[in-house]
Amino acid sequence: MRPSSSRSDGLFDGILARGGVPATVSDDAWLAAMVAVEAALALASAEAGAIPADAATAIAAACEGLDADPGTLGRDASAHGTPVVPLVAAIRRALPDDVATYVHRGATSQDVLDTAAMLVCRDACAVILSDVDDAADAAAGLATGHRDTPMIGRTLLQQAVPVTFGLTAAGWLAGLDAAADGLRRLRPAVQLGGAAGTLAGLGPAGPAVVAAMAYRLGLDAPTLPWHTERSRVTALASALGVAAGALGKPARDVTLLAQGEVGEVSEGSPGGSSAMAHKHNPVAALSTLACAAQAPGLVATLLAAAVQEHQRGAGTWQAEWRPLRELLVAVGSAASWLRACLTGLVVHPDVMRATLDRAGDHREAGATEPLGNAGSFVDAALAAHALRRNA
Amino acid sequence: MRPSSSRSDGLFDGILARGGVPATVSDDAWLAAMVAVEAALALASAEAGAIPADAATAIAAACEGLDADPGTLGRDASAHGTPVVPLVAAIRRALPDDVATYVHRGATSQDVLDTAAMLVCRDACAVILSDVDDAADAAAGLATGHRDTPMIGRTLLQQAVPVTFGLTAAGWLAGLDAAADGLRRLRPAVQLGGAAGTLAGLGPAGPAVVAAMAYRLGLDAPTLPWHTERSRVTALASALGVAAGALGKPARDVTLLAQGEVGEVSEGSPGGSSAMAHKHNPVAALSTLACAAQAPGLVATLLAAAVQEHQRGAGTWQAEWRPLRELLVAVGSAASWLRACLTGLVVHPDVMRATLDRAGDHREAGATEPLGNAGSFVDAALAAHALRRNA
Amino acid sequence: MRPSSSRSDGLFDGILARGGVPATVSDDAWLAAMVAVEAALALASAEAGAIPADAATAIAAACEGLDADPGTLGRDASAHGTPVVPLVAAIRRALPDDVATYVHRGATSQDVLDTAAMLVCRDACAVILSDVDDAADAAAGLATGHRDTPMIGRTLLQQAVPVTFGLTAAGWLAGLDAAADGLRRLRPAVQLGGAAGTLAGLGPAGPAVVAAMAYRLGLDAPTLPWHTERSRVTALASALGVAAGALGKPARDVTLLAQGEVGEVSEGSPGGSSAMAHKHNPVAALSTLACAAQAPGLVATLLAAAVQEHQRGAGTWQAEWRPLRELLVAVGSAASWLRACLTGLVVHPDVMRATLDRAGDHREAGATEPLGNAGSFVDAALAAHALRRNA
Amino acid sequence: MRPSSSRSDGLFDGILARGGVPATVSDDAWLAAMVAVEAALALASAEAGAIPADAATAIAAACEGLDADPGTLGRDASAHGTPVVPLVAAIRRALPDDVATYVHRGATSQDVLDTAAMLVCRDACAVILSDVDDAADAAAGLATGHRDTPMIGRTLLQQAVPVTFGLTAAGWLAGLDAAADGLRRLRPAVQLGGAAGTLAGLGPAGPAVVAAMAYRLGLDAPTLPWHTERSRVTALASALGVAAGALGKPARDVTLLAQGEVGEVSEGSPGGSSAMAHKHNPVAALSTLACAAQAPGLVATLLAAAVQEHQRGAGTWQAEWRPLRELLVAVGSAASWLRACLTGLVVHPDVMRATLDRAGDHREAGATEPLGNAGSFVDAALAAHALRRNA
Repeated sequence: MRPSSSRSDGLFDGILARGGVPATVSDDAWLAAMVAVEAALALASAEAGAIPADAATAIAAACEGLDADPGTLGRDASAHGTPVVPLVAAIRRALPDDVATYVHRGATSQDVLDTAAMLVCRDACAVILSDVDDAADAAAGLATGHRDTPMIGRTLLQQAVPVTFGLTAAGWLAGLDAAADGLRRLRPAVQLGGAAGTLAGLGPAGPAVVAAMAYRLGLDAPTLPWHTERSRVTALASALGVAAGALGKPARDVTLLAQGEVGEVSEGSPGGSSAMAHKHNPVAALSTLACAAQAPGLVATLLAAAVQEHQRGAGTWQAEWRPLRELLVAVGSAASWLRACLTGLVVHPDVMRATLDRAGDHREAGATEPLGNAGSFVDAALAAHALRRNA
Repeated sequence: MRPSSSRSDGLFDGILARGGVPATVSDDAWLAAMVAVEAALALASAEAGAIPADAATAIAAACEGLDADPGTLGRDASAHGTPVVPLVAAIRRALPDDVATYVHRGATSQDVLDTAAMLVCRDACAVILSDVDDAADAAAGLATGHRDTPMIGRTLLQQAVPVTFGLTAAGWLAGLDAAADGLRRLRPAVQLGGAAGTLAGLGPAGPAVVAAMAYRLGLDAPTLPWHTERSRVTALASALGVAAGALGKPARDVTLLAQGEVGEVSEGSPGGSSAMAHKHNPVAALSTLACAAQAPGLVATLLAAAVQEHQRGAGTWQAEWRPLRELLVAVGSAASWLRACLTGLVVHPDVMRATLDRAGDHREAGATEPLGNAGSFVDAALAAHALRRNA
Repeated sequence: MRPSSSRSDGLFDGILARGGVPATVSDDAWLAAMVAVEAALALASAEAGAIPADAATAIAAACEGLDADPGTLGRDASAHGTPVVPLVAAIRRALPDDVATYVHRGATSQDVLDTAAMLVCRDACAVILSDVDDAADAAAGLATGHRDTPMIGRTLLQQAVPVTFGLTAAGWLAGLDAAADGLRRLRPAVQLGGAAGTLAGLGPAGPAVVAAMAYRLGLDAPTLPWHTERSRVTALASALGVAAGALGKPARDVTLLAQGEVGEVSEGSPGGSSAMAHKHNPVAALSTLACAAQAPGLVATLLAAAVQEHQRGAGTWQAEWRPLRELLVAVGSAASWLRACLTGLVVHPDVMRATLDRAGDHREAGATEPLGNAGSFVDAALAAHALRRNA
Repeated sequence: MRPSSSRSDGLFDGILARGGVPATVSDDAWLAAMVAVEAALALASAEAGAIPADAATAIAAACEGLDADPGTLGRDASAHGTPVVPLVAAIRRALPDDVATYVHRGATSQDVLDTAAMLVCRDACAVILSDVDDAADAAAGLATGHRDTPMIGRTLLQQAVPVTFGLTAAGWLAGLDAAADGLRRLRPAVQLGGAAGTLAGLGPAGPAVVAAMAYRLGLDAPTLPWHTERSRVTALASALGVAAGALGKPARDVTLLAQGEVGEVSEGSPGGSSAMAHKHNPVAALSTLACAAQAPGLVATLLAAAVQEHQRGAGTWQAEWRPLRELLVAVGSAASWLRACLTGLVVHPDVMRATLDRAGDHREAGATEPLGNAGSFVDAALAAHALRRNA
């Protein structure tokens, strides 16, 4: 019998949770990250002389071999307001008492959960970036291949003056490159402050532990603990929100250009309809839109949660967990869909030409040539993209 | 080995998905609702003479016995933009060809998914209502028991003039009752329009099928199909958003009144801290706040999705699925937490008294008695609550 | 004469603040409402025996004749966190000391501002309702006139099966009627609780003063003060949010149907372009969309603000003022634009016919007639609308 | 003289629109920016050889002397969907026909409005940055002065373990510095693409005109026109959203620490109450919170608007104008309030001491010293701040 996974969302995941991100933000991934943080804390503490080296090695080994169940931890979490309390207990149970006392030494639950969140976000963002880069490459391919393919430009959903499809794709490319820049600029950092941010439990070794832990986990070392200074979270949310817009824009255009009455592009693998055999639904583009549409509300929730109380928040911090995960999944799904959409996009230059011909001579007053600087704009966008991709 | 349920969220569910709602919005619940809709459609169609009665009975039996896996349907959904296409195929596979042809007759995927959504929302809202009502009863109990317990009123987070704790609780009660009123007013309706809303596939029997289906499922029959007229969804979202505010308000007060420096209430089962044995964290109240904080962004996403295209939306409709589910879970979790919080709330009249004494004679100019009309306001709120609960 | 400055934003107001709402939410309107509240409070207090009748008459007269400047009050407000403090001072200055002492007796600033907000919202909603009703009438006219005008239905932005333009318009109508229902259901209420909600300053006469004030102002009398029980505000926000969706939907369709490649409708007074004489921009429809797009974020802000502290909020209440005003303006502007759009909409049945002919025989399997129940759905929507309009 | 009307909302402006931003985003400021763009376009076009130098000089002079009324332009805008059309007409009217023909040559309305928006945003952000920097300086001053002032740390709104007030202030400082970093990183750019982004109207001189215009206006030259590539707008919105969180956090703490029961800080100029002489409302902090609370919803609106259609959006672009302005005002107002709040903040070390004493020996297990690394964290935050301020 299938396990009853009450919140699995599998039913809609084919559409709303496509691509590699869900695996990076799964309970298993979160748990693995939390365990890795506890191990790194122990090893770093030993390196800084705060706990015995033997104990650290044993703790790291226990973490490595830990077989914990997220669902059980989740249930136990409700009594404490965090799943870290039962996790630490589980690690300690796997160790002799004289070693167990060094587990989690100096840390608070939020240290572990925030650092794990940074690891999870880093991994998820790497997947997102890969798909955004691939989508950008696909846009660059379209811009290159159709640098001089004329089509009617449309403004306010009305036909306007000629442009090229290459210029249209170059605009998509510029947005995707900007989105990738924003994601690449993020610098996830270790969180380690202890109960109220003084890291008193580690004594003067505290800053050295932070530095060693950051090195081990491949994260930045922060200037000071950031339990209630959430700019890292809001910056991450913002970069994802910007990316959602950049992903939605080409998808919007594809749905509009793929309309039967327009017919200038079509998806390579359109969706069918059970009732209407003639339909070619732009499933990839509209799924991109559906996923991208999740972002603004989730970003807003994360921004609102940033106003946290005192040394550690009362409900505000906990309010971040769900939207952070959902935002990563939504933007990741949008990126995966758009990559599929643009990679397989079929362009119909003949239809574009015919539309232009019907549109007549709609040129701007004073235009010396109908397509103006479209070609040089495309070249500039491609050059900027090449620089990024070769960097 | 534990099944890999990538989006299970079990890890945070103890805090963010408490109570009975998750089971009502699980994949299994959605799938059961979708299957129930296909069965009701067949039976209703037979009742209206649109398909043979034998075929309907066979379809209903096949639906009853269907063993479909949400995860598989979800994966197959990605090619169609909806999990209904593979579901219909699965039902048809379980039937002889001459009966299979009547499955889903006249309907479009959105008919099934929207009607299933209404069933799911109805069930989830019933759970939420039950918890809101229980929380309101608890608030009423507090208002009754502390009708005349004086405490300092606080405005702008400063001590102001005397009130009673009963009046404070009566204010919570009024908000919860208003939230319940809003939820009770919702009227979920059948969706049945066929491919583009004319219900042409059922011929003149169409409206009769809608009526019979509504009767069978216990839903309203709409005036006309509402594929892109989403006021039912936005009204539901709004009622849940209003409820979130009403649930968050008492929780905010509890976190403030439970501060060590205030100490006028405490939770019956506060959370402990792994590092600090003396702490009594108001876990129920702060979890309520964390859950309620999800609502505004999710409501905004649903409101924005309401501007849908033509006869059926391109990405806008699909954008509803996740936030609708999440919103139900978030508000349901908040309701479950607040119920626990208020039911177990411990009030400290002596501390309230002492605070008042320290505060000195902070009375409004012209006050004929310090507590004014607090008692009669409490009585009025209690009377209004009793009327609702006895209705 | 003081320049009529309020809510100017004149530069964008032609597009984003169209119609009658801006005047109802202007500084002058707010100020007039606040003054009316102070007058009603005095007269009601006299009726309940809480202050001398002579004083009440004098206060009402002073309110009537008050010449206060919103800008000055606004500047003075910054020291108090509310413009009511300087307003009360201004009224008192206009009266002899022995009368001045009765001004604002028993009330707190929030009483005046909240009750004034209810008056302002009532007036603004009346304007919005009038425009929504007019837009609904226009949609009803289109549904009637084109009950049997066939057009291709479009799903997922692809041509699907035949519908009628009447059915399309009937869908718009149903949404607008539901929006109007929601607005009509709102019951704005008096706020009067004094410093912390006990109304101690008015003694046992308190409830009678509330009742008399409600009667005078045409508002509901609440069960108890609602300083931090904000369901009235969130319900209002929600109804406006639902309305925004219902207003945006027809506008979305008009922009899509008015595309040059589709050409099935056009606006009666399209906008020109400085550069492109051939363009006919659907300015009314796209302005409707721009205004409606403001709503989700503003509703979210108001929902989030509902979790207020203790007896009166610290920043949460103040956070309501701007989005409430902006939301009324945005939805009112959308309603005014859509009214103009639908009233002047030009339908092109010949183009619809030609598109259908090109689309070929795209009918649902089993359809006994291409247009199915479109006609009876239209009739049902029209009947429901007629019932509402004659009620 | 035209009344200075823009952005009046005078009644609430003392609280919700404090500081220097409103003047930078007023109608007059927008109009001045639009006129400056038209002048720069003309001069840059002449420099690139696209129009005669004499004409450019005359146009620039006409722009300089233009006396246009935002309200009138706004009203005329409604027919065109943009106030630029009547503005261009007004400039042309001030010039002889043979020169007038060169006004706005090659540009579209959106070019002017977007570039003006960038100028307005640059100026507004400079004001915001100045206030954020001042607030950060004030936080740095508090961190320096109270580097070793012990206080109880509070987590989940419960007393936890000792920290220092310096560490609390250093956390504020780190957030404000991060917010300032984000604002400083913004690179507003010229928009110039002509009707559909090819800049055909300026012929091969197009890119040179863009470059010259960017130089003249002190903006970046974009790789290509960004009419529907809105990452500049969403990045700006995001940076403001992040800043709002960083501004709200210290304000939240001040409202909590200033509670009568806590009394560890108080505002230098608290607000009074008309009814309660003893109250000292933390008006600056709560107004900061009210302003910061506007940001999430406005950011969400801007993010959602980024999915724009084809070459220029139909309602999506227009949807940006209001929230962009409001967001700048809200964040600017929050920054101005927080600057006032922190600059005048009165700290009560004796109360902090007494609270700690009452709290008993709440130290983390294993703490070698009660305050741990608080001092070195403060030093690190101060050093990082000094680096930024001296850069």
